[in-house]
Amino acid sequence: MTEKAKTSPVHPRKVRDVKQWDLETDVAIVGFGGAGGCAAIEAADNGAEVIIFELASASGGSTALSSAEIYMGGSGGTRVQQACGFEDDTEDMYNYMMASAGPQADAAKIRNYCEQSAAHFQWLVDLGVPFKDSFHAQRAIMALTDDCLLYTGSEKAWPFVEQAKPCPRGHNLEVEGDNGGPLFMKIITDNVASRANIAVHYETRALTLIIDEDDRVVGLVIRQNQQELNIRARGGVLLCAGGFVMNEEMLHKYAPMLTQGTQPIGNPGDTGSGILMGMAAGGAAINMHEGFVSLPFYPPASLTYGIAITDRGQRFVNEDVYHGRLGAFALRQLSQRLYLVVSVEDYGDYETMSYLGAPVAATGDSVAELEAELGLRADSLAHTVALYNEDCAAGKDTLFHKSAEWLKPLEPPLVALDITPGRGVFVPYFTLGGLDTLPTGEVVNAQREVVPGLYAAGRTACGIVRRAEGYSSGMSVGDATFSGRLAGRQIATAGA
Amino acid sequence: MTEKAKTSPVHPRKVRDVKQWDLETDVAIVGFGGAGGCAAIEAADNGAEVIIFELASASGGSTALSSAEIYMGGSGGTRVQQACGFEDDTEDMYNYMMASAGPQADAAKIRNYCEQSAAHFQWLVDLGVPFKDSFHAQRAIMALTDDCLLYTGSEKAWPFVEQAKPCPRGHNLEVEGDNGGPLFMKIITDNVASRANIAVHYETRALTLIIDEDDRVVGLVIRQNQQELNIRARGGVLLCAGGFVMNEEMLHKYAPMLTQGTQPIGNPGDTGSGILMGMAAGGAAINMHEGFVSLPFYPPASLTYGIAITDRGQRFVNEDVYHGRLGAFALRQLSQRLYLVVSVEDYGDYETMSYLGAPVAATGDSVAELEAELGLRADSLAHTVALYNEDCAAGKDTLFHKSAEWLKPLEPPLVALDITPGRGVFVPYFTLGGLDTLPTGEVVNAQREVVPGLYAAGRTACGIVRRAEGYSSGMSVGDATFSGRLAGRQIATAGA
Repeated sequence: MTEKAKTSPVHPRKVRDVKQWDLETDVAIVGFGGAGGCAAIEAADNGAEVIIFELASASGGSTALSSAEIYMGGSGGTRVQQACGFEDDTEDMYNYMMASAGPQADAAKIRNYCEQSAAHFQWLVDLGVPFKDSFHAQRAIMALTDDCLLYTGSEKAWPFVEQAKPCPRGHNLEVEGDNGGPLFMKIITDNVASRANIAVHYETRALTLIIDEDDRVVGLVIRQNQQELNIRARGGVLLCAGGFVMNEEMLHKYAPMLTQGTQPIGNPGDTGSGILMGMAAGGAAINMHEGFVSLPFYPPASLTYGIAITDRGQRFVNEDVYHGRLGAFALRQLSQRLYLVVSVEDYGDYETMSYLGAPVAATGDSVAELEAELGLRADSLAHTVALYNEDCAAGKDTLFHKSAEWLKPLEPPLVALDITPGRGVFVPYFTLGGLDTLPTGEVVNAQREVVPGLYAAGRTACGIVRRAEGYSSGMSVGDATFSGRLAGRQIATAGA
Repeated sequence: MTEKAKTSPVHPRKVRDVKQWDLETDVAIVGFGGAGGCAAIEAADNGAEVIIFELASASGGSTALSSAEIYMGGSGGTRVQQACGFEDDTEDMYNYMMASAGPQADAAKIRNYCEQSAAHFQWLVDLGVPFKDSFHAQRAIMALTDDCLLYTGSEKAWPFVEQAKPCPRGHNLEVEGDNGGPLFMKIITDNVASRANIAVHYETRALTLIIDEDDRVVGLVIRQNQQELNIRARGGVLLCAGGFVMNEEMLHKYAPMLTQGTQPIGNPGDTGSGILMGMAAGGAAINMHEGFVSLPFYPPASLTYGIAITDRGQRFVNEDVYHGRLGAFALRQLSQRLYLVVSVEDYGDYETMSYLGAPVAATGDSVAELEAELGLRADSLAHTVALYNEDCAAGKDTLFHKSAEWLKPLEPPLVALDITPGRGVFVPYFTLGGLDTLPTGEVVNAQREVVPGLYAAGRTACGIVRRAEGYSSGMSVGDATFSGRLAGRQIATAGA
């Protein structure tokens, strides 16, 4: 077994076993998604020589597959926020993000992010990322127009609305349809290409890190054209290789909750290889049990007028929350079935607009009929609806604090969608655990001591986003691009 | 920062930096609790020379502080199970433990445990551990008599009752009162003392592991009488240093759920030092987010006739489950208050018998009065009680599947206990994450490759017990003693 351990490709190679350096650079970056691309630009603009090693034959990573909404605000507001009449206070953004991240929040990272977020917006604009000065008022997962600003989280929903003044912070690129990701990565890739001090090696697999006798990371081993090459990285190695949502074994071991999801969100390279390499070099992996998981029950926004219930006919969350928060609480219910009950009137465009894929479990001309058809205990759902409708009439959800904006009595005919994970409904998921880092991107060990020469950003690191129950769309691309920049700058300037 | 990293005591010392070996042995064990003690005995009985290093001035660890109930069965039953008329099938035990551990179950470990558990009982008996052939029928957290066998989990509760034939498997030592732990550790300590090939060094702190140039663990550094000594361990080092419940920083980082608990269960040495040492030497830590957490709402057993509700007046779990399972589901509710509602008649001996410490939130001569006094929405609790009482009359809990044995209509006068964590109630907790090991106790890295020379057992390892929601009393001491034995045997025989 010792033999096997020694020959594993993930174990760091010792510098004494390196016969020659095949390539040298200041900064070696593994992965050319949003994090790796922004890191390269920032490192290069700070005078460093950079090489990006990308497994695929093109840049993109999971950022290119996403909508590339970016969560930004604070400092009085980005240009778009201000143009749309929103003044965003840094403290409100901080309080919202801290509440979102929960007890495992990294206050230093969130503080840093909120304080520099408006400047990050400007940095992206300067790279050529287009944002229109317009507000998308409709409740949506993403803007399908070229409008920019929208609410992408639970800012207006209880309990967050009591903790911080709501403000929309999702910034959508100026492009029609769900095409933000490809456009964003094209702009980043063009910026990388235009910088003489960045080289990109595609179709190149990072095999393992190289450490010296003091355990400093001094380079990495790559495989290219069936050859193993030793890369010396004078400043350090930055891992931007994504999360581990495509690694089933790791999901079972670290994030069992996510095994209830149906659709991993990410690119095929999200196998956790960067996290594993970092761990093997002494980095600590944290928050590994958490992930984004969701029941994307809107659009159409009108489904928000419905109620989500267990098979006891009980509600369990205010339904005006972000879809990931509803998904997170859905997974916690000790219930064999979950339903979304809505008036047929508000079912509306469900069949053409929805991503949810939830089958219709029952319809009824009365609550009692629906209850019977769902096989629920008599007077369970009926009672829930009776109280809910009373509350709607009074304009105040006494039980779950759904905002008045979304309170409307449930009037038959009614429809119940089966939103039980595992029964046809679409449950997207991805991981939120990774290497523990300082805000600078320096990877730390379990005692939070820096692992010299090792950096991580994007989903290979554990960033500002920690839980599905507090997630807002745009936090991941925001975190990836911002953390990439900081890490790139840190490596470029640390040795100076 | 490099300098700080290099001087940290947890980083493995490299053998090249060891000027001399101050002591040599076959097996070095860190920690003299249940795991360390049983490991030492087994290693010694397999011919190895053993040294135990214990931080405290006496043996005991968390096992001595516990009730030392031991979860055992299978193979047709232990002597006690058989004497009490229970035939325990290994498959039933396996199915129950697999369901308990959930998606993160380690099937190999649980299989091994269930198959060898009855033999483990005999091994303990042979060491002199006394078990009386008697059954303690009352629902209890622990037997306060010298009776042995009791139900200590959720075996008879839904959904487990549908997954495996219930059988009591908690084995209490033959001693009056809650005194199993001290007696158990006295017997183990006497057994250790009677073996010439085991030495024990008390008041000795393990500082770090020593690794050779191939990253094999070859010894450890200890501090004793203000001196650092290098210990060579020819066979390997076994970490039995407990969990990390006393390390607040680690709790926040790895197990945020547990920060809702009020009382850490463990000894002051449960600082995670063993886990951190193992991680620094390449071991993977898994299941770090999970822990035992509980609302110990019985005794008196009669409180099981009550219902647990949220501040919406809704039940959320069948109340005949183990107290840890109720606690785990309590923590998942999106509720600002949680109550246990019971008839005054069944409140009974609460004030003298209970560990719960939950203050009385309200009393009422009617449900409506209780509801109003608790500030619940009108007709929320009233409706819940109405359905529940109907179900009790019919002998079938249609909503939460509480067993008929515990169904009795809630008749006023009623009392509501405030069981909200953070408002006076006792919420004990401890960690269930640790180093990933093979059933042999060999520590593995994130790729599940063996870290040569490194072993872990007890709560320093991640064992058979993975979740509060599936916990049964006796699983921890069962796991600690059994995993200690296996690891001790493995080290003693691996080099042979």
